Amino acid sequence: MSGTIGTPLTRVAAGDATNLAEGAFDLGTFVLQSGSALREAQLAFKTHGQLNASKSNAIVYPTPYSAHHSDVEWPIGPGKALDPEEYFIIVPDLLGNGLSSSPSNTAAPHDRAHFPNVTVYDNVVAQHRLVTEYFGISRIALVLGWSMGAQQTYQWAASHPGMVARIAPFCGTARTTPHNLVFLEGIKAALTADAAWMGGAYEVQPTRGMRAFARVYAGWGFSQLFYKQELYRQLGFSSLEDFLVGFWERRFLKRDANNLLAMLWTWQHNDLGSTPGYGGELRRALGSIRAKALVMAGETDLYFTPADIEYEASYVPGASFRVIPSLWGHQAGNGLNPVDSSFIDVHLKRLLAS
Amino acid sequence: MSGTIGTPLTRVAAGDATNLAEGAFDLGTFVLQSGSALREAQLAFKTHGQLNASKSNAIVYPTPYSAHHSDVEWPIGPGKALDPEEYFIIVPDLLGNGLSSSPSNTAAPHDRAHFPNVTVYDNVVAQHRLVTEYFGISRIALVLGWSMGAQQTYQWAASHPGMVARIAPFCGTARTTPHNLVFLEGIKAALTADAAWMGGAYEVQPTRGMRAFARVYAGWGFSQLFYKQELYRQLGFSSLEDFLVGFWERRFLKRDANNLLAMLWTWQHNDLGSTPGYGGELRRALGSIRAKALVMAGETDLYFTPADIEYEASYVPGASFRVIPSLWGHQAGNGLNPVDSSFIDVHLKRLLAS
Repeated sequence: MSGTIGTPLTRVAAGDATNLAEGAFDLGTFVLQSGSALREAQLAFKTHGQLNASKSNAIVYPTPYSAHHSDVEWPIGPGKALDPEEYFIIVPDLLGNGLSSSPSNTAAPHDRAHFPNVTVYDNVVAQHRLVTEYFGISRIALVLGWSMGAQQTYQWAASHPGMVARIAPFCGTARTTPHNLVFLEGIKAALTADAAWMGGAYEVQPTRGMRAFARVYAGWGFSQLFYKQELYRQLGFSSLEDFLVGFWERRFLKRDANNLLAMLWTWQHNDLGSTPGYGGELRRALGSIRAKALVMAGETDLYFTPADIEYEASYVPGASFRVIPSLWGHQAGNGLNPVDSSFIDVHLKRLLAS
Repeated sequence: MSGTIGTPLTRVAAGDATNLAEGAFDLGTFVLQSGSALREAQLAFKTHGQLNASKSNAIVYPTPYSAHHSDVEWPIGPGKALDPEEYFIIVPDLLGNGLSSSPSNTAAPHDRAHFPNVTVYDNVVAQHRLVTEYFGISRIALVLGWSMGAQQTYQWAASHPGMVARIAPFCGTARTTPHNLVFLEGIKAALTADAAWMGGAYEVQPTRGMRAFARVYAGWGFSQLFYKQELYRQLGFSSLEDFLVGFWERRFLKRDANNLLAMLWTWQHNDLGSTPGYGGELRRALGSIRAKALVMAGETDLYFTPADIEYEASYVPGASFRVIPSLWGHQAGNGLNPVDSSFIDVHLKRLLAS
C-alpha cells in the first residue's frame, strides 16, 4: 500500500496489549452504512497522556477535513484544557485522510476513485471500536472537534448517549446546510475541472485542479475583514499572493486528490438525522443527546455560520452556546491565533470542570 | 469579426445623425489607461425612450459583469423609476462583454488572450465619448448601476463631477476589496484549471472549467439563507442541482471564457483612487464627487458587503446609504425578485425627484 506519509503506522488489533501512542487499528472487514465494505480497513490514531487505572480520563478528539492527527495538536499540552498530565487524549484520523483507510492507501478493488462512500456515522463506528476494543474504554470524559471534527463529535453523542459525558463541537454542524454543500460543490468542480484528474485514475496528482481547489477554499476559509486587515501577516505571510500560495496551495498540494474528494463526500452527506433510529429527523437526533454540551461558533464563519450552529444547539438539551469573537472566519477554531485559541481553551476548561 | 451574438450591431460614429436605439459606437484607436491601444474599438449600447429637446433627460446605466445590455432591463419601463416616457436611458456595454470590444470579437493582434487589460476608468472614457460625441449630451440626470455597474457609476461621478447630477451605485464598491479579489481568484483558477482553456488559445470553449467557474460563483452569488430557504424555487427551479445547472452553468456557458477573464481583470483592478489626479487616494476620489448620491447595499451580500459599501459612502459628500433588506445576497440588486426590485425602484424615484 502507498499512502501520503513516509513511514507506515504500526498495525494494532482488538485485544492487543501494546497500548501504542501512534498506530493504525485493524478494522478487518469494515461494513459501511451504505452496505459496501472495506477489507483490511484501518483507523489511524495518536494518543497523548496516559489512561488512568479506572479508565475514566479519556478524551476523543477526531480530526477535521484533510488534516492528519499531528496537525491538530494546538489545544493539547500542559496547562491547557487537554492536559496530557491529566487526560488520555485519543486523536482518531478521519477515514479518507491518507492515514486511516483512504483512496490513496487502499488496495484494489477499493483503490483511488473506487473507494466507497464513507459517512460521519461510519467514522464513529470505527472510532468506537478503537476506543472499546483496543483501549478498553467504556466511558469518555469529553468528545470535541473543530469543523468536520464537530460533525463526528455530534455523532458520538447521538450514537453513544450513555458513554459520552461531555461534548464540545465547534465551528461545525450536525447536518450540512445547503449553502455549505454549494461551497463544497465549487471546490469539487474546481479540482475535477483539471483533465489530469482523469476521473480519479491519475498517476500524478492533478496539481492545477488542486491549486484551484485551494484558491477557491481561501475565500471561504477566512472572513472578509481578515483579508481587509491583512491578518495573514500574523501568520508570517508577506502579501496576499504569498498567503494564497504559502498557506492555501501548500495545505492541499500535500494531499491526495482522491482523498480530498472522498472526505468532501463525507462532509456533503453529513446528517445526524440519518443515524439509525432517528428516521432522518435531525431534531430528534439532537434531542437524544445526554452529554453536557458546549457548542461554539466563529463569529465570522462563512460556511458554518453562527446562526446555523445556534439553531442546532437549541435542540440539544441543556447545551450552552458561545460565539468566538473573531475575524478569522472558520479558521477561528483551528488554533491559528492565540486570542481565539485562548477563548476556546477557557471554555473547554469550564466544561471539563463541570 | 465573430462575437457571441447572432447579428452584429450597426456601427455608428461621432457626429452621425442616425440616433440608433441599439448599435456599436466607433471608438477608433482607443488608447487605454495602461498605454496599450485597441484599434477599431467599439462600444455597444442600447437606449430606451427619447432624448428631449434640451437634452436634459439622459440616464446612463452601465452593464455589470458578463451581462449584455438586454439582460439588465428590469428597472426600465413605464411607471418605473427609469421610465422611458420621461427619460432617455443609455445602457452601454462593458468592454469585454462580447458586444463591446472583447477578446471574442477583436481581430489579431488583440484577439482572445491577447486582448489588453481594460480598467473601469477606460470604460467610462469610452462611455463619455458615446454620450457626448454621438448623442451630444453634456449633462446627465443620473448614472446608476449594479455590481460592476456600480463601479462604473462611481467612476462617472469622479471623472466628470460637473456633468453628473445624481448617482445610484448599488451592490458595488469604488475599490475592489482584498476578499472580493480572493473570490475572483477562485473562479479564475477554477476556469483556467481546465487544460482545454489552453492559455486562452482554445478553438472550443473550455466548458468544464466554465461549469466549475459557475459552481464556485453559485456559493458567492446568493446568501446562506437563500439556499437554506430554497428561494431558488421562486425562480422556477425544482431543486438545488437544477438551480446550479439551470441558473449558474447556463448563465456562464452562454459566454466566452476569455471575455469572462477580461472582465474579471477589470473587476479585480477596480480602484477609483487610481483615477488620474487623485494619486491613488480612494478617499480623495470619493470626496470629489459632486453628484447627489444614493448608495445601496444588499443586506446579505457576501462579496460587496454592506460594511464595505457604507464605509465608502461615508466619504461621498451628502451621500445617503440604504440597505436592501434581502436574503438574495448580491443578487438582491439584479431584478430577480419583486420585493427587492420595488425597494430599489422606490429609492431611485426619490432620488430622481430630488
